[in-house]
Amino acid sequence: MYGKIALEEAFALPRFAERTEWWAGLFATDPAKHAAEINDIRTKRVEYMDKYGVGYTILSYTTPGVQDVWDPKEAQALAVEVNDHVADSIKDMPDRFGAFATLSMHNPKEAADELRRCVTKYGFKGALVNDTQRAGPDGDDMIFYDQPEWDEFWSVVTELDVPFYLHPRNPTGSIHDKLWAKRKWLIGPPLSFAQGVSLHLLGMVTNGVFDRHPKLQIIIGHMGEHLPFDLWRINHWFEDIKKPLGLAETCKKTIYEYFNQNIWITTSGHFSSPALQLSMTEVGADRILFSIDYPFENFHDACTWFDAVELNPTDKRKIGKDNARRLLKLDSFKDSEK
Amino acid sequence: MYGKIALEEAFALPRFAERTEWWAGLFATDPAKHAAEINDIRTKRVEYMDKYGVGYTILSYTTPGVQDVWDPKEAQALAVEVNDHVADSIKDMPDRFGAFATLSMHNPKEAADELRRCVTKYGFKGALVNDTQRAGPDGDDMIFYDQPEWDEFWSVVTELDVPFYLHPRNPTGSIHDKLWAKRKWLIGPPLSFAQGVSLHLLGMVTNGVFDRHPKLQIIIGHMGEHLPFDLWRINHWFEDIKKPLGLAETCKKTIYEYFNQNIWITTSGHFSSPALQLSMTEVGADRILFSIDYPFENFHDACTWFDAVELNPTDKRKIGKDNARRLLKLDSFKDSEK
Amino acid sequence: MYGKIALEEAFALPRFAERTEWWAGLFATDPAKHAAEINDIRTKRVEYMDKYGVGYTILSYTTPGVQDVWDPKEAQALAVEVNDHVADSIKDMPDRFGAFATLSMHNPKEAADELRRCVTKYGFKGALVNDTQRAGPDGDDMIFYDQPEWDEFWSVVTELDVPFYLHPRNPTGSIHDKLWAKRKWLIGPPLSFAQGVSLHLLGMVTNGVFDRHPKLQIIIGHMGEHLPFDLWRINHWFEDIKKPLGLAETCKKTIYEYFNQNIWITTSGHFSSPALQLSMTEVGADRILFSIDYPFENFHDACTWFDAVELNPTDKRKIGKDNARRLLKLDSFKDSEK
Amino acid sequence: MYGKIALEEAFALPRFAERTEWWAGLFATDPAKHAAEINDIRTKRVEYMDKYGVGYTILSYTTPGVQDVWDPKEAQALAVEVNDHVADSIKDMPDRFGAFATLSMHNPKEAADELRRCVTKYGFKGALVNDTQRAGPDGDDMIFYDQPEWDEFWSVVTELDVPFYLHPRNPTGSIHDKLWAKRKWLIGPPLSFAQGVSLHLLGMVTNGVFDRHPKLQIIIGHMGEHLPFDLWRINHWFEDIKKPLGLAETCKKTIYEYFNQNIWITTSGHFSSPALQLSMTEVGADRILFSIDYPFENFHDACTWFDAVELNPTDKRKIGKDNARRLLKLDSFKDSEK
Repeated sequence: MYGKIALEEAFALPRFAERTEWWAGLFATDPAKHAAEINDIRTKRVEYMDKYGVGYTILSYTTPGVQDVWDPKEAQALAVEVNDHVADSIKDMPDRFGAFATLSMHNPKEAADELRRCVTKYGFKGALVNDTQRAGPDGDDMIFYDQPEWDEFWSVVTELDVPFYLHPRNPTGSIHDKLWAKRKWLIGPPLSFAQGVSLHLLGMVTNGVFDRHPKLQIIIGHMGEHLPFDLWRINHWFEDIKKPLGLAETCKKTIYEYFNQNIWITTSGHFSSPALQLSMTEVGADRILFSIDYPFENFHDACTWFDAVELNPTDKRKIGKDNARRLLKLDSFKDSEK
Repeated sequence: MYGKIALEEAFALPRFAERTEWWAGLFATDPAKHAAEINDIRTKRVEYMDKYGVGYTILSYTTPGVQDVWDPKEAQALAVEVNDHVADSIKDMPDRFGAFATLSMHNPKEAADELRRCVTKYGFKGALVNDTQRAGPDGDDMIFYDQPEWDEFWSVVTELDVPFYLHPRNPTGSIHDKLWAKRKWLIGPPLSFAQGVSLHLLGMVTNGVFDRHPKLQIIIGHMGEHLPFDLWRINHWFEDIKKPLGLAETCKKTIYEYFNQNIWITTSGHFSSPALQLSMTEVGADRILFSIDYPFENFHDACTWFDAVELNPTDKRKIGKDNARRLLKLDSFKDSEK
Repeated sequence: MYGKIALEEAFALPRFAERTEWWAGLFATDPAKHAAEINDIRTKRVEYMDKYGVGYTILSYTTPGVQDVWDPKEAQALAVEVNDHVADSIKDMPDRFGAFATLSMHNPKEAADELRRCVTKYGFKGALVNDTQRAGPDGDDMIFYDQPEWDEFWSVVTELDVPFYLHPRNPTGSIHDKLWAKRKWLIGPPLSFAQGVSLHLLGMVTNGVFDRHPKLQIIIGHMGEHLPFDLWRINHWFEDIKKPLGLAETCKKTIYEYFNQNIWITTSGHFSSPALQLSMTEVGADRILFSIDYPFENFHDACTWFDAVELNPTDKRKIGKDNARRLLKLDSFKDSEK
Repeated sequence: MYGKIALEEAFALPRFAERTEWWAGLFATDPAKHAAEINDIRTKRVEYMDKYGVGYTILSYTTPGVQDVWDPKEAQALAVEVNDHVADSIKDMPDRFGAFATLSMHNPKEAADELRRCVTKYGFKGALVNDTQRAGPDGDDMIFYDQPEWDEFWSVVTELDVPFYLHPRNPTGSIHDKLWAKRKWLIGPPLSFAQGVSLHLLGMVTNGVFDRHPKLQIIIGHMGEHLPFDLWRINHWFEDIKKPLGLAETCKKTIYEYFNQNIWITTSGHFSSPALQLSMTEVGADRILFSIDYPFENFHDACTWFDAVELNPTDKRKIGKDNARRLLKLDSFKDSEK
């Protein structure tokens, strides 16, 4: 399919090149190649896009990124630097690239202000944040955005009418270090990523964020971070047991309704037809978005899979581009099938 | 379907009746009813079984049970008491009831010995353990069974040729208490149960337990605790990235092979046809077992759902009873369709 | 679900009551009940609608109806009588009932004129025709509407911007009589209905009707009369073999495109979740419409099935009512969930 | 997958080479290539098998073959010639090739005798017949095998304990000629093949063939010739309406039971994952067999599709080879994964 739109596509700051390559050694079989790809925005990436029929990419700063910086001032400075860098890099290619704002999530007002700056000044399409914000004197605390003090932030997100991508990050903190150290192969995509994001998103649901901000649009990647498969069980326990016991105070709608009114899922890194099929049943094709997760995943795996998925052309177009065009209000981009 | 077999069915010790009812208040809309049902073995339960076409039930001690007892001696004494109690309760109804042994998991040899006693003396069908064993002076430590010192235990499990049911338990420990306290509605079936068991089971996979014990048979409930949906992504990262980086040292087969050779999933508490459909595709009907999770779930929800699932009769029989009959080596039980 | 819309719902003319009951004896276990139900429009039917949450019904004259009348004048007179009868019966209940025009299909212009009369005078929502028109001196000929002389008719259908429901009828003619007589249990819903309609619809596709009338909207019932399951095979042979051999002259688009641009399927008489699932994948939820096929099928089977289908709420609403509302341009009808 | 087994693989008699090529012009884009492939047994075919991982092929004479010969003596002579030819061609390659007997179906006893000769003398694995036998002075009659006089034949099939493959053929007879001539692109795989076989097979079901021969095993190709998709509707009308009206006299079991006890389906010519998924649900993985339909289809399409189908390894092995090994009682064949 030509003109696919991809939403979870990472870049890094070139000035951190050395650290980026070291970091890549933890999860990439070819760290140098990974580092080269993530530091590039317009060269290698555009070649891949053209080769594999991706018309438009939303860029976002790589994980854990600013969410790993526990000093608030340092975090804020880095976020601003990242946003200015990507805005400058893509400003003359508006038909191929957009960006999600990088945010320091130490302070709701500060995060909201930076998002507003990025959207109004640069035309950014929303924000992407890497799960909890590391905080505290030793970086052992984790800030969740599902508490009341974050209403101020979510109000600005909905006012700006842009989506917020809740992206994973690694577990941190001493207790986690010990727990995951003995099963280190499960850190990241095989398990910990989804466990973190699903906890955070369901925290937002049960703490009433979507009830207080009914227009809020959250995107999660990796085919929904385990959740589409479990919607029946979550719904059953919420509706039949937890709500009678008190959950109904904060959370008025069903989990299916939140998934149909507030949540989007992407295919990033989970190129599985059975998982897509289940998600179409439980979440619906109107709420699924193609994405790659480049350069942690490659264009070839994502695009040859999606292009070959056996699916009626209407739903395939929705997932491949039409849903994203609607969500991101994209007027024009390179789509030879238009 | 007549003659269904159910494998994740809980009982409690009547002498803890008061505590059981208090505990039920945390998750049951009618704590008194729940307490009455879980303390009963042969009366109300048999009525339900007859009414809903369940021919045979494997009983197991309720969660968190012995896994919440951090004093090793107390834990062992409780396990023995539980096993003797259930053995005595069902000894004259071998066509309707079997049991999974309750085990204190502080010490591999002690656990193995108690399992051997239950299997050889009482004819128990295997063991059911509630995730990690709480341990340490304050109960803040958690023992996982995916470390090398547990090989001794797994050797006895495979020698006895019985399955081991890895059942969930609540998260414990101070850091968890804080994390989950602010999103308490997610404790248990909506999220934390599956997060615990999937971590534990994948820990066993990646730490090589199944490579060292290739005949070991582990059962997990709740339609696979999120895992069937994510097998593609797990497999992709294990095979393409983690194994080249070192995972191949402990883990020779693919995750699909472990699920086809060592792992069984049950329908307990997840009465969802789309989830069953996905599991049939990714895990296969030969490895799925009907179960209820009574009295946390009720017979009506489980059995009317399963009886109505639109599925060819061969696979339905497999999931409803034939797989369990094969796994548990049941010669005879009440099955009017036999 | 409240406010469901049903589109394949039959009535008969009361003056044929005796014949209707005799006919019912061929396929109904309770012919008297069937006859009472099909002759009723506003009493029993409204009770069922209210009981089972059907907000709006499109009525159509029962099969084989006018398509079984091989005398052209008699056929035309009957069609007009039927249309006047139903228009009169429902005129004061526009929030509960609409109608599809009954047409004599002996002559394209005459059929077009009667459709125009029904749409403009009575506000009918389209037409429903029972497969081929029986014709010829002995009723042994069958008129298909996939030949060029029917372009005149299809032009009016698209000009009026209403859908055309291609409903089944029994096979007729001496050769068929012999063939089907020895396997009479296959006549009707088990086999012959779908064989007739699928031949007719694919005849329209391959003879270029949709290429010449790209806005034409055809509805077929019974979950697509076998076709959704075979779209891959049809597409493969059309695109890879038949088009290079000449089919490309009349038929420019793919079968998937015709199904996404010109064809709708309903659930009438095929209350199967696996079949619906396949149809959602191959045809797409935007092109599927709830229907019952009353009184050949009953409200209970259709509605309890559909209400219980495990499906995300967006797609369920589409299939249950939103798609029909869009296709039929329904402004208002009884929908308590609106 | 290595060692796949294919069961619907055609050959022709070299002495008809000229006619074969003319015939190929009706449906093949490259008639000369088709003719070369179908006349070859051991050269090109083995190359394809090795290249695409097919370990074992069951050969059968091409359609319409003997079923198009309406002179009984000529038909019988041709059947014998075909069987001797293929037996001789493969006799020294028993690890790569088996055959289904070609039968003249004018006379049940003659057909049974020839089948017995092929099975006992040559070790053929069963029979493959191309739908109805053309008969009568002008070839306008069609013999179905669902009538009582064929019991004699079916008794021998079950006595020999071999399967019978009911393969499609084109519609014949003057009335059909006219009907299909105006929609000629639907002849063959797009529609007429499945309409013929599904009528014939359901004729056998409703006329009680499987009730009188409960061990009879029938194979149908092309993912079940439309039937898996319609099992719910067939079952509903058989059980709820037709049986009370009289069908119960000949037909005691449900259509699902016949599909689980007497019928097998193959993937030949229908390389569609959604269709396979539906068939796994409605028919079950234990009754599905990989096949290609070479040289009407090619090895590349069939094998790259099947090898890439996202399916748990147990069911994939069943469909790819284990089911066929069991059905055909294959002790040894070339299977590098054994």
